[in-house]
Amino acid sequence: MRIGIDAMGGDHSPMVEAGGALAARAILDPQDRIVLVGDEAAVRKCLADAEDWQECIEVRHAEQVIGMNEVPVEALRSKPNSSIALLAQMHADGELDACISAGNTGAFVAAAQMRLRRLPGVHRPGICVMTPTYYGPLVVCDVGANVNCRPRHLHQYAVMAVVYARTICGIKSPRVGLLSIGQEDAKGNILVRQTYELLQGDPGLHFVGNVEGRDVFRNACDVVVCDGFVGNVVLKLMEGMAGSVIRTMLDELGLNMTEEHDQVTRAARSIISKYDFNEYGGAPLLGVAGITIICHGASDSRGIMNAVRVALEFGKLRVNEQITELLSQRQGAAHE
Amino acid sequence: MRIGIDAMGGDHSPMVEAGGALAARAILDPQDRIVLVGDEAAVRKCLADAEDWQECIEVRHAEQVIGMNEVPVEALRSKPNSSIALLAQMHADGELDACISAGNTGAFVAAAQMRLRRLPGVHRPGICVMTPTYYGPLVVCDVGANVNCRPRHLHQYAVMAVVYARTICGIKSPRVGLLSIGQEDAKGNILVRQTYELLQGDPGLHFVGNVEGRDVFRNACDVVVCDGFVGNVVLKLMEGMAGSVIRTMLDELGLNMTEEHDQVTRAARSIISKYDFNEYGGAPLLGVAGITIICHGASDSRGIMNAVRVALEFGKLRVNEQITELLSQRQGAAHE
Repeated sequence: MRIGIDAMGGDHSPMVEAGGALAARAILDPQDRIVLVGDEAAVRKCLADAEDWQECIEVRHAEQVIGMNEVPVEALRSKPNSSIALLAQMHADGELDACISAGNTGAFVAAAQMRLRRLPGVHRPGICVMTPTYYGPLVVCDVGANVNCRPRHLHQYAVMAVVYARTICGIKSPRVGLLSIGQEDAKGNILVRQTYELLQGDPGLHFVGNVEGRDVFRNACDVVVCDGFVGNVVLKLMEGMAGSVIRTMLDELGLNMTEEHDQVTRAARSIISKYDFNEYGGAPLLGVAGITIICHGASDSRGIMNAVRVALEFGKLRVNEQITELLSQRQGAAHE
Repeated sequence: MRIGIDAMGGDHSPMVEAGGALAARAILDPQDRIVLVGDEAAVRKCLADAEDWQECIEVRHAEQVIGMNEVPVEALRSKPNSSIALLAQMHADGELDACISAGNTGAFVAAAQMRLRRLPGVHRPGICVMTPTYYGPLVVCDVGANVNCRPRHLHQYAVMAVVYARTICGIKSPRVGLLSIGQEDAKGNILVRQTYELLQGDPGLHFVGNVEGRDVFRNACDVVVCDGFVGNVVLKLMEGMAGSVIRTMLDELGLNMTEEHDQVTRAARSIISKYDFNEYGGAPLLGVAGITIICHGASDSRGIMNAVRVALEFGKLRVNEQITELLSQRQGAAHE
């Protein structure tokens, strides 16, 4: 596979992208290559000390960078030579099999949606993350691609996220929960109530009904379906809360996070790393005819390397082919 | 003040309500009285061992109980003699100055909205909770009264929650954040983008802009405004997550929560109690012409007693009068 990495626009670009590419060499097959897209001189400088990096890493120059706070569609229009625009174009042209960015998420998602086709039958792509809980990984879709969802979008998120949970997380028969505010089917807003009926009526899904925020941590399901606004709020809340709870606990014990040798602070750091997005290697945009992995803006080299790992698995395990197959079965059933 | 407490329909009724009423005697003024509304024989049995309870507690019989999973409006219609319906009616008739329930939240909110008038100018009442963070209490409104919000509803939630934060939490100039998925004003769904303009245009609010889930734990604001669906998801997520993080941490250390004397497990229990709804004594439904305090279904006696405390403060600090005053200033300004 040829995997493109945006080497601009993240909080620590291009250093972490170059570092991630170098670290990822350990997990590449001989035919795999990584293409770093960014300021060529700056990227080469980051690679300079590594031996033989040219064997599996290429650098492709990009003139422009899209900042974190730019408005996505406007930025893409005014910066056709930005690293994000180039990545998406290279992927669309077949020069790449996957692309990864820790830059402006909105711009990356918009570029992927504009340049790559959607998979057959997909109404709206959705961002799918795997997040830790006490009981193991939990898959959530959508966490921000689509903030004005319809019921049929959420239904497709369920199908796509189930494929992801099965293939990438190895969960045999993922239980699907619909994020709502009460377990009864009458609870929730209009979107959720209508989606409930669609999910309930789909015999191919292991639908366990509505789940509430607290159920998410009680092993009630493996896949949580929600609209992109709610999903994004929830994701960032979880990111902030783990640290807050741990800091409060260390305070109670009169400890602080920087103590190196204390057993409790070591455990604290370990927990925080479990809730650390870097461990999970980025979130795929499901539903596009390509492999698009979104990394957190604050990703470190490990985060980028793990994103490469996800991209490789995504390709090898033929996630998109399985999504297409499952969706076409549903369309066939709907037309009968 | 005369404070009515629903003694039916909670997870541990009527025991915790009777216990809460007895404990609350310590914080009542001589003229205050508590009225327990429920199965008279069962309630009296719970009170029997206490001395002189009749001095400040009354019992009022209710024939019917609304279960946790009943559909609110249907249940109220078919059970006019339920404790929740009676409480709201007694409050509307002036027999009570406040009412408290740990029963079916939807039914309690619906009963309050049907029986009590709205405060002048209020479009939709909203449930307001105070929740703990590392930096202190955070006020969130709405957390479930109104799942299909309009921008003007969210604007009023901001005004009402500011009054609550000032009076009950003692925060002088509460900073208001709008829960969204990015700090820039262009981020969010349609509801949030339109609400942003209303809040931005209100010089009486200390509006700090959009806040994301993670900012909530970084002391970015004192009041978070959101629609009732998102707020309810967030509230329950926080409830579940504190326990999940702490359990993971104890696991790492080879400890479990039941060890009595270990310093770390003591700290763990202390944190969990900080995230425990019982400490906060229930959430008021803001915007109704009355004092309606909603308790968690799993409340214990301490939770009920703290709800009595909130009801007393709510009355003494004239929260409703201040809400009416602030809203009328805005209406005046809008009509100029």
